[in-house]
Amino acid sequence: MTRALILGRFQPCHKGHEHVFADAGQRFDELVVVIGSSQESHTLTNPFTASERYEMLHAVLRRRGIEHHVVPVPDIGRNALWVSHVEALVPRFDVLVSNNPLTQQLFAEAGYKVAPSSLFDRKTYSGTNVRKVIMEGGAWEALVPPEVAAVVEQVKGAERIRKLARIAEGFEGAP
Amino acid sequence: MTRALILGRFQPCHKGHEHVFADAGQRFDELVVVIGSSQESHTLTNPFTASERYEMLHAVLRRRGIEHHVVPVPDIGRNALWVSHVEALVPRFDVLVSNNPLTQQLFAEAGYKVAPSSLFDRKTYSGTNVRKVIMEGGAWEALVPPEVAAVVEQVKGAERIRKLARIAEGFEGAP
Amino acid sequence: MTRALILGRFQPCHKGHEHVFADAGQRFDELVVVIGSSQESHTLTNPFTASERYEMLHAVLRRRGIEHHVVPVPDIGRNALWVSHVEALVPRFDVLVSNNPLTQQLFAEAGYKVAPSSLFDRKTYSGTNVRKVIMEGGAWEALVPPEVAAVVEQVKGAERIRKLARIAEGFEGAP
Amino acid sequence: MTRALILGRFQPCHKGHEHVFADAGQRFDELVVVIGSSQESHTLTNPFTASERYEMLHAVLRRRGIEHHVVPVPDIGRNALWVSHVEALVPRFDVLVSNNPLTQQLFAEAGYKVAPSSLFDRKTYSGTNVRKVIMEGGAWEALVPPEVAAVVEQVKGAERIRKLARIAEGFEGAP
Amino acid sequence: MTRALILGRFQPCHKGHEHVFADAGQRFDELVVVIGSSQESHTLTNPFTASERYEMLHAVLRRRGIEHHVVPVPDIGRNALWVSHVEALVPRFDVLVSNNPLTQQLFAEAGYKVAPSSLFDRKTYSGTNVRKVIMEGGAWEALVPPEVAAVVEQVKGAERIRKLARIAEGFEGAP
Amino acid sequence: MTRALILGRFQPCHKGHEHVFADAGQRFDELVVVIGSSQESHTLTNPFTASERYEMLHAVLRRRGIEHHVVPVPDIGRNALWVSHVEALVPRFDVLVSNNPLTQQLFAEAGYKVAPSSLFDRKTYSGTNVRKVIMEGGAWEALVPPEVAAVVEQVKGAERIRKLARIAEGFEGAP
Repeated sequence: MTRALILGRFQPCHKGHEHVFADAGQRFDELVVVIGSSQESHTLTNPFTASERYEMLHAVLRRRGIEHHVVPVPDIGRNALWVSHVEALVPRFDVLVSNNPLTQQLFAEAGYKVAPSSLFDRKTYSGTNVRKVIMEGGAWEALVPPEVAAVVEQVKGAERIRKLARIAEGFEGAP
Repeated sequence: MTRALILGRFQPCHKGHEHVFADAGQRFDELVVVIGSSQESHTLTNPFTASERYEMLHAVLRRRGIEHHVVPVPDIGRNALWVSHVEALVPRFDVLVSNNPLTQQLFAEAGYKVAPSSLFDRKTYSGTNVRKVIMEGGAWEALVPPEVAAVVEQVKGAERIRKLARIAEGFEGAP
Repeated sequence: MTRALILGRFQPCHKGHEHVFADAGQRFDELVVVIGSSQESHTLTNPFTASERYEMLHAVLRRRGIEHHVVPVPDIGRNALWVSHVEALVPRFDVLVSNNPLTQQLFAEAGYKVAPSSLFDRKTYSGTNVRKVIMEGGAWEALVPPEVAAVVEQVKGAERIRKLARIAEGFEGAP
Repeated sequence: MTRALILGRFQPCHKGHEHVFADAGQRFDELVVVIGSSQESHTLTNPFTASERYEMLHAVLRRRGIEHHVVPVPDIGRNALWVSHVEALVPRFDVLVSNNPLTQQLFAEAGYKVAPSSLFDRKTYSGTNVRKVIMEGGAWEALVPPEVAAVVEQVKGAERIRKLARIAEGFEGAP
Repeated sequence: MTRALILGRFQPCHKGHEHVFADAGQRFDELVVVIGSSQESHTLTNPFTASERYEMLHAVLRRRGIEHHVVPVPDIGRNALWVSHVEALVPRFDVLVSNNPLTQQLFAEAGYKVAPSSLFDRKTYSGTNVRKVIMEGGAWEALVPPEVAAVVEQVKGAERIRKLARIAEGFEGAP
Repeated sequence: MTRALILGRFQPCHKGHEHVFADAGQRFDELVVVIGSSQESHTLTNPFTASERYEMLHAVLRRRGIEHHVVPVPDIGRNALWVSHVEALVPRFDVLVSNNPLTQQLFAEAGYKVAPSSLFDRKTYSGTNVRKVIMEGGAWEALVPPEVAAVVEQVKGAERIRKLARIAEGFEGAP
């Protein structure tokens, strides 16, 4: 039984992520999907809570029929400890699936196998672009799996992102 | 679909926990099991990492056929923020299953339903007692589900606890 | 007796803030004024300590004859916990006075009444502009209440800000 | 104008504290009362939030007609930085009022005058004893100022303390 | 060139430590001496700052003619990350010198050689006992190297420890 | 005996730093060199661990024959506490050597002598420029002391910086 580790912030989960999950789900028995920066929410770069991101990821992975473990992991702010930090919080895994060269190196040095993640159109399918399309009132639903659109709507996520954008433009203050 | 929240440190998961899971699994559709104090490990009170506790819990709940979500949650050290902290990290839940009067009160004040957890022999089945029996070289395997015994053996957990006990008795130092 | 909550960083307190206080002081019995980012000081964006900001705010509110509570609140870095964090640290309040759409939403969701703060010329009266005028050696005293000018002079605040600006322009280093 | 600094945890504020305030209020113009361990609440040693303690202190000091500033200060966990930490968060003060020998020394070394606080029966009037009497169902109201009794009743503080005591006796778990 | 790592809190450095240094200094080329819990000071268990402990250790090692690196390391509060934490902060080392069974295991698992530290009378020569003798006004100077006695006297360390003991006995309060 | 304090991040140590050390080493008996932001590593601005920076600094200072103490100091994120934080962690010092106007002011206010550091070509010799030349594949070895070049090569630092640059350009994700 081989478990693959996939890391992301998933702000929000989009079709590029789903593509990576589907491909890795065929190559490996189980996926350990880490919700990175789990402590973040309600900012323009990290609008969704870990709770909301958990719901998105679980629903997509369940529909796909992929055995999975979704685990929120807070930032540690100490890159030298990143691999040890992840190892202590998630179930054991055998291989890292990532195209990030630094992440690949850190996990390889710690003795893990490393596999590339499958490619997709990163310009269209990125958290940054999804949030931008939401801010501009565009057709963001086409960029994400239907389960993600459902969660975003349920928590009024598009409205939240637009409010956050208005703050970023002009206000000074708290929080 | 009703999800029940169950909180514990699971150092380690024992048959009392399994009893609570089995009972709650019959009353509710899905369990959200929080691994509390997820940042702790390698101390006499908290010998196991969140990773190891995740393996224990997942294996027991899967054998039982209970739909479950296991989520590590670090301490926040601010009791007034405890409910908000948990809400932000775990999937949505409907009811708290707990016999802890403070936990009951905090979640009730935040608007959650509260249900008692089923009773068991707390003197025999407690993390404290399991660790004590391990330290004294007793028959600890009888106190935990077989999957937990397997994880403890795989990570040499009994040996680890005995080393920790020797440090507590006589040494001064790090870590 | 109705208490209104007002949040700000007050770096420094300026005449726009005073305008908001005066207006809210007429509509409500007491003001709870939160010094946000209380842990920050000696940076270009946050030059003043919470201690210095406390002195500014207290002096202005006392001259105005407004019943008030000034409370320093550190950042929590977890937006999902912001309302609970404030609630645990400041005296009870009934209504939030703010024009910040996200803050309004978070406190409204937590069950508080929300009232807009009175309008003023935000381009002239903003912490950012006051600090800019100080940096450029302009007539910053006209932008702040006289008690604030007195505190800034007492702690040599203008000199501090200009030093901080020189660091930002060209130096690499500590702190 | 002379300001005196008084430090305490005030779990809860009792008649001994009131005695110290009354005495210091006669000797000095204004009191700066620090709510120490402001981040703590809902534990047996620290049952009340900073918000609740603020209400207690403010009501007592107002009735006494003492000019005061109540300021919550979180623990810093670095004793070597304690004086600098307090200085950065509270309004300027001239003298420390305390009988704690270490606190006296730390503030004296930092250049502050130090004055003893007035004596009272520390065995009867201590936070530890008040909480003990509450736990045992005794006549705790006689040990605290009437405004404190009112806050404790309003937040169901006696019930909270008794629940916390039950947890401490027998349960293992979260939070 | 072989470097040995030695970990301790050194509250204060005593003749048992010096014995270990002398022995390790003969077996290895350079010592990396970690001041653990570097953030602690002014408590009964950790009375001395890292700065003071640095002076003690440097003076003893210099007199002994041992090539050394003294490095303060703060607690991380995550035992699973302890080895990575130390590795990221101190110069490279080849072997751990320790009799602590958990520390031995953690560094061995991370690939380091482990050597025992030389034995001495741990009952007489321990930080706990030195602090106890200081508290009771005994002949503590006989238990520590002369350079340590000099630092303790210069910072009035014995007086500090006795004040801390008086607080521990009877006071409630800050810091 | 006079000890001078020098603060820097040393990402990496370059010939400008060496020039400052050589000059200060002639004016003072010993140097206390603080590795600032010791907790940082593996980012584009802070690519090297404190461990690696320690090796660089120690090797340069030893070749120069300068008595020195290299001490890693983590950020405290509270500028008002910066001087107290440094004082608690490093051996005692008499004078600050720095051209940073804020640092000069903070240490002068705390009672330290302040001396300027010797001048050099800050445009060529800066951490920012060294990292830029590495990224662009230029002749970075000419900008740093030979011992620093050796450490960078040993830890494959140039490769690390180029990987970090690729992430900054295009990727979203962890760590």
